[in-house]
Amino acid sequence: MAGYHLEAIEAAPLKDDVDIVIPTIRSLDFLEQWRPFLRHYHLIIVQDGDPSINIRVPDGYDYELYNRNDINRILGPRASCISYKDGGCRCFGFMVSKKKYIYTIDDDCFVAKDPSGKEINVIAQHIKNLETPSTPHYFNTLYDPFRDGTDFVRGYPFSLREGVQTAISHGLWLNIPDYDAPTQLVKPRERNTSLCRYVDAVMTIPKGVLYPMCGMNLAFNRELIGPAMYFGLMGEGQPISRYDDMWAGWAAKVVCDHLGFGVKTGLPYLWHSKASNPFVNLKKEHKGLHWQEDMVPFFQNLRLSKESDTATKCYMELSKMTKENLTKVDPYFENLADAMVTWIEAWEELNPPVKNEACDEELNPPVKKGSVKDVKAK
Amino acid sequence: MAGYHLEAIEAAPLKDDVDIVIPTIRSLDFLEQWRPFLRHYHLIIVQDGDPSINIRVPDGYDYELYNRNDINRILGPRASCISYKDGGCRCFGFMVSKKKYIYTIDDDCFVAKDPSGKEINVIAQHIKNLETPSTPHYFNTLYDPFRDGTDFVRGYPFSLREGVQTAISHGLWLNIPDYDAPTQLVKPRERNTSLCRYVDAVMTIPKGVLYPMCGMNLAFNRELIGPAMYFGLMGEGQPISRYDDMWAGWAAKVVCDHLGFGVKTGLPYLWHSKASNPFVNLKKEHKGLHWQEDMVPFFQNLRLSKESDTATKCYMELSKMTKENLTKVDPYFENLADAMVTWIEAWEELNPPVKNEACDEELNPPVKKGSVKDVKAK
Repeated sequence: MAGYHLEAIEAAPLKDDVDIVIPTIRSLDFLEQWRPFLRHYHLIIVQDGDPSINIRVPDGYDYELYNRNDINRILGPRASCISYKDGGCRCFGFMVSKKKYIYTIDDDCFVAKDPSGKEINVIAQHIKNLETPSTPHYFNTLYDPFRDGTDFVRGYPFSLREGVQTAISHGLWLNIPDYDAPTQLVKPRERNTSLCRYVDAVMTIPKGVLYPMCGMNLAFNRELIGPAMYFGLMGEGQPISRYDDMWAGWAAKVVCDHLGFGVKTGLPYLWHSKASNPFVNLKKEHKGLHWQEDMVPFFQNLRLSKESDTATKCYMELSKMTKENLTKVDPYFENLADAMVTWIEAWEELNPPVKNEACDEELNPPVKKGSVKDVKAK
Repeated sequence: MAGYHLEAIEAAPLKDDVDIVIPTIRSLDFLEQWRPFLRHYHLIIVQDGDPSINIRVPDGYDYELYNRNDINRILGPRASCISYKDGGCRCFGFMVSKKKYIYTIDDDCFVAKDPSGKEINVIAQHIKNLETPSTPHYFNTLYDPFRDGTDFVRGYPFSLREGVQTAISHGLWLNIPDYDAPTQLVKPRERNTSLCRYVDAVMTIPKGVLYPMCGMNLAFNRELIGPAMYFGLMGEGQPISRYDDMWAGWAAKVVCDHLGFGVKTGLPYLWHSKASNPFVNLKKEHKGLHWQEDMVPFFQNLRLSKESDTATKCYMELSKMTKENLTKVDPYFENLADAMVTWIEAWEELNPPVKNEACDEELNPPVKKGSVKDVKAK
């Protein structure tokens, strides 16, 4: 028993501090394969699409499940900020969690093997990434200096070696790479294999640099950056889809840069099993492919004010800037900007801010019982 | 014979467009092992220290060799800008070359093997890095999108996919990592091995981000950035050493950023055979370890003017800024700033600028015969 317990701790680090958020429209059989790594964690399942469908969760997992009816009941009119028929609905799970860390994963992703054939413990790697500092102010040519067997190289100022707190850990994918529809169409057979394209590195994305954040294999510190992890208005009733994670990534990165938090990318890899249909994707993406030419420069050039000293305040300011700068691209952005405000209002209702900011524990109090948490017991 | 010729072309791409610059104080026996990869290239050997020592170059290599007497004769009083008893003397070789690309390597570096056991052709990889574009404006999470088997990921704006011309390719090291003296002392046994710490990636260092450039395994486009690749005043008669490549790296990076050129780091690895003495290094470095706390912010915050539209003009402006901003750190920087001007004067004497800038060929005319090129025939 002691041995079993030790093994569990090793395989499931910080199991009481992490919630796993999974958006899904189907059975969660993919969790069978993840059992060695995920069974000790609590799951928050966000059921997308028809709420009457019964989602099967493999035995032995501890979970809460929310369908659209639950979201509507919990958020009331504010439920309008949560996307429907789009993976972006996952951010509802970020909001109802009370844990320090979130790991979110897609249900077509499986355990990958490193080049030595060993199965990769994604959560252990994400937690390592999140619990060690980032170095956004200067590039270390030997990559993550906090990894075993490496360090800061000659010419790295000592004053920068302490680094900053890490807020986001962005993991990658073997097998099907995360391409847009045009690239999928042009390169239908391109695959990332563990022997050819496995890059054994974690690195900080420097301050002031944007990147395309994919939501398939993503972990973050909810306490630091949660309110900026809004996956936008996508899917049914919206002119755009498949940009939910991109929007969250750009916004969260500028907020991290402003607040002095770090963002890492690289390990861990997981196995992305199947490419979505490129023609369907093209329809979902086509406005995004166009709009990203304005969205990226918008995020690259904006400067948040000194008064915005929390993720919540930054996000409110960002909403205003979105309305002012992107509405000329398309009226959609006015709706998005309003939804960003709604998101923050809903976040604060479920995670009420505390007056006395001196005490860390009070910053993230447990949610009032019976008011919002409506959990389907396993 | 035909087969041999083909093999040579494959092993030695662009052999007429690359000079290999090697600073040394000893015999060049290390070139024996490099023969399969370097024998078709022309070498420029810069002999440091006592000019009366006879440097042995393995048979079969085509080379020119310059010792301190040669440097003094060719540059006259301007020879003062070339370091003595420091690897920084290598930049003299950059100045006398007339090739498009420079590859510079240290004489304690050997051929490394990739994790599959295959010997790495460093030059072929550096040329691939230099001849494909860089992407400094936005981070691609699957690393170099121009590499076979990979591409730009979803969320990468199409307008940025053309990239920019690459000016610098910074390669890495297996076995002995490039640590400063304090880190060497703390971790005397740390090694990079091809099985544990080989990172199979090339990436662009984003615009606006500085990195510690090591001169051990470095290639660059001399036409684009040559005048900014000055390795400073180091070694005998100077208060500082082992910051020659760092100075060049910081300066060249801000010039690349300003002129719109890209800088890559990562592959290829070579095998760095022996760690230099940490106590000797500590003596050489101790002022640099202190001064880098001012040098790095200086380079991070400076903005070159619009008028500086060539590497030469940028470097002249940088010299002025160095004098204005760093002399307060130490009077040494006043001398360095003057040496930067001397360097540019010497560069222009050996590489006279051409009036009609419309013609590419005229930008890099062959040096006047008999005036400066004084080659020891092999």
